[in-house]
Amino acid sequence: MILIKNITIITQNPKRQIIKKGALVIEKDRIKAVGQSQKIEKKYRKRAKKVINGQGKVVLPGLINTHTHLAMTFLRGYADDLPLEDWWFKYVYPIESKFTANHVYWGSLLAMLEMIKSGTTCFTDFYYYQDQVARAAYQIGMRGVLGCAVLDAPTFYFKTPAQALKNASLIIKRYSDNDLVNVSLAPHMFQTTSLKTYQECKKLAEENDLLLTTHLAETRQEVNYCLKKYKQRPIEILAKAGILDQKTILAHGCWLTKKEIKILAQSGASIAHCPVSNMKLASGVMPLIEMLGVGVNVGLGTDSACSNNNLDMFGEMKTAALLHKVYQLNPTLANAQTIFDMATINGAKALGLAEEIGSLEKGKKADLIILDFRQPHLIPYYNIVSHLVYAAKGSDVETVIIDGKIVMEGRKIKRVKENKVLNRIEKFVL
Amino acid sequence: MILIKNITIITQNPKRQIIKKGALVIEKDRIKAVGQSQKIEKKYRKRAKKVINGQGKVVLPGLINTHTHLAMTFLRGYADDLPLEDWWFKYVYPIESKFTANHVYWGSLLAMLEMIKSGTTCFTDFYYYQDQVARAAYQIGMRGVLGCAVLDAPTFYFKTPAQALKNASLIIKRYSDNDLVNVSLAPHMFQTTSLKTYQECKKLAEENDLLLTTHLAETRQEVNYCLKKYKQRPIEILAKAGILDQKTILAHGCWLTKKEIKILAQSGASIAHCPVSNMKLASGVMPLIEMLGVGVNVGLGTDSACSNNNLDMFGEMKTAALLHKVYQLNPTLANAQTIFDMATINGAKALGLAEEIGSLEKGKKADLIILDFRQPHLIPYYNIVSHLVYAAKGSDVETVIIDGKIVMEGRKIKRVKENKVLNRIEKFVL
Repeated sequence: MILIKNITIITQNPKRQIIKKGALVIEKDRIKAVGQSQKIEKKYRKRAKKVINGQGKVVLPGLINTHTHLAMTFLRGYADDLPLEDWWFKYVYPIESKFTANHVYWGSLLAMLEMIKSGTTCFTDFYYYQDQVARAAYQIGMRGVLGCAVLDAPTFYFKTPAQALKNASLIIKRYSDNDLVNVSLAPHMFQTTSLKTYQECKKLAEENDLLLTTHLAETRQEVNYCLKKYKQRPIEILAKAGILDQKTILAHGCWLTKKEIKILAQSGASIAHCPVSNMKLASGVMPLIEMLGVGVNVGLGTDSACSNNNLDMFGEMKTAALLHKVYQLNPTLANAQTIFDMATINGAKALGLAEEIGSLEKGKKADLIILDFRQPHLIPYYNIVSHLVYAAKGSDVETVIIDGKIVMEGRKIKRVKENKVLNRIEKFVL
Repeated sequence: MILIKNITIITQNPKRQIIKKGALVIEKDRIKAVGQSQKIEKKYRKRAKKVINGQGKVVLPGLINTHTHLAMTFLRGYADDLPLEDWWFKYVYPIESKFTANHVYWGSLLAMLEMIKSGTTCFTDFYYYQDQVARAAYQIGMRGVLGCAVLDAPTFYFKTPAQALKNASLIIKRYSDNDLVNVSLAPHMFQTTSLKTYQECKKLAEENDLLLTTHLAETRQEVNYCLKKYKQRPIEILAKAGILDQKTILAHGCWLTKKEIKILAQSGASIAHCPVSNMKLASGVMPLIEMLGVGVNVGLGTDSACSNNNLDMFGEMKTAALLHKVYQLNPTLANAQTIFDMATINGAKALGLAEEIGSLEKGKKADLIILDFRQPHLIPYYNIVSHLVYAAKGSDVETVIIDGKIVMEGRKIKRVKENKVLNRIEKFVL
């Protein structure tokens, strides 16, 4: 049993309650109690094996990254400031062909180091060799969704979508119904993936009650491709094919019409909003305000380190707020609480895990992060949620607990030797 | 004499040379030598009193913040997500009326802690009680320009612009021609400051060979105000009044026409671009690409902690790049080197200090920062400048040297007790 006492708790419960001088008790993998410190301490102090004093600190739900490609940490800064086609065809695609299972394992482990050190406790990956991603996640103790990429175009990992689907079936057998990781089907995008492949992915997902995630309407080129090939816009294609429902996460969604946004809202599908990547690749501005207006569930994602170039959800939150304010020339939009919800409870909803993570409530999984607020850029404070979105940084995260286990304490990763990982990464030649 | 050896040097010299396995020697306040480590070590090792081993580290010119209001750290997160008028009239202006000299001293010291810890070595402040700002700068060892705010509207500090100008004269006598700090005249903005006051500021600046800095074309409202009152646009007013020259820094410049940008370029005046603040207050998007196209010198600024809400130039660099890429839907614009120049050598040019700071060259002032690149989010790397703009964070700054003196080492501030400052700040009641 772990007792965190005398701390400010950002619960993100339905009332968005903030408890000053609060305490939180963790038993095994779950939150046993949340409340006033005095009361909680009285009841649990003796039984607690570990007590964390939260003086000057803030505890919040671990952040949830709803869209990323972990192993692409190897390609951070490899291709910047380029036209999108050059970025992909001349740089990323050719070098990825040199990737092996080993790259995916080490690149994912590196990504998890970065994510944990910046307060993310749960990811939705979208890549190949998901057994290697699972291996890294177990080792470091991180929660995540293993997105098995499927496309018609040949990749370094498989030659046909049938191979990719067969592999996904193996991953599903091995990892679904697991405490720490789950599996999703990840058809790539319309330009590389046929509708038939999308439908086969959906079938496999439905048979196993799994999520399906895909890139959608990231660029205008993609919309034009759809209009030419299918005479319909991206959301219409998916909706008519029966692919759009509550178990769907669409990354990006920059170029959606009002009509598409309405279909999206009715379907119950979620959006993984990736503002930094959309800005860096100049893909476009996702119509966030319109989506929220009709009740679309929107989570946040960093996309890969090759188009961000970080996996830091604090940076993502701030950029999201800034982008939509200036885009609409209205500073009241995309306010701090709205954005913070996207990074926590709405991310959990997108993953179908809102009963388990995304807020600090009794009975939920203990996925939480503790920030040190005694820093020059966080003192004084008037509104903690404002500070979390506009002023705090990944580096303010001091302690990370996932599934009830301390995976980082005092910024030291517990189960993996950070230095060893960095040394190993430096030895890779691409 | 300080020897920094075996380090990657981002010189920012005219050739933008990057020296791997380099060394840098500091004698008193200046850079004595820059070059290959072996050669430099041979010559200077014995004379060096302090040797810093730069293995795995990168040294670069200290970042230059060309527009901020230091003491407003007290108002960080005090007024977010509000319409601009409410932000100013209902929140900021009333609470600022409670400020005293003591607030300015402690608030500025807090700002300097944050700036140094995120790699800024030189600031351009714009506020009141500049003797208090100077006091803080001397104490912590930071370079800066003391911008004496002048306006016609009464403030907590003075009732008339004559009083403000008189005070500015005293500040000039006391602090100009000084090694660490300099003085500038800072007429506030057209809505609060008459053209007569602008002209008096310029006269005083010219008599003492000082900079003049002001807010200009931050909002559409301001442009409309100018068109109504003066029948001219902001840049035209300043140009005709003889206020626009190489000794002028204009903050914001969001709403300039092509004609104004041309006048600006011809005048030699510089822009302090503050993308985060412009986005957060939804003021608008500054036409950066058009400005660079005609040769306007553009530096970067954070603006105050009340509209950013950080004073972190790493965050500012990344946001600047992202904003202009998506604004123009062109990922090749605002590339890493362009943005990094804005935060270093172009900032120095804006301040009239390009002979002294902004690059690591023999004979220049030793204002530099050392970053620890052995971090999960910085390994591996292909292009260091890309990493500095898109991936590095203020918290990666390990050591800061200003005017040849180590002001932070191993993230520990040397001349001021950080904890004491934080304790004191918490005791203020506003």
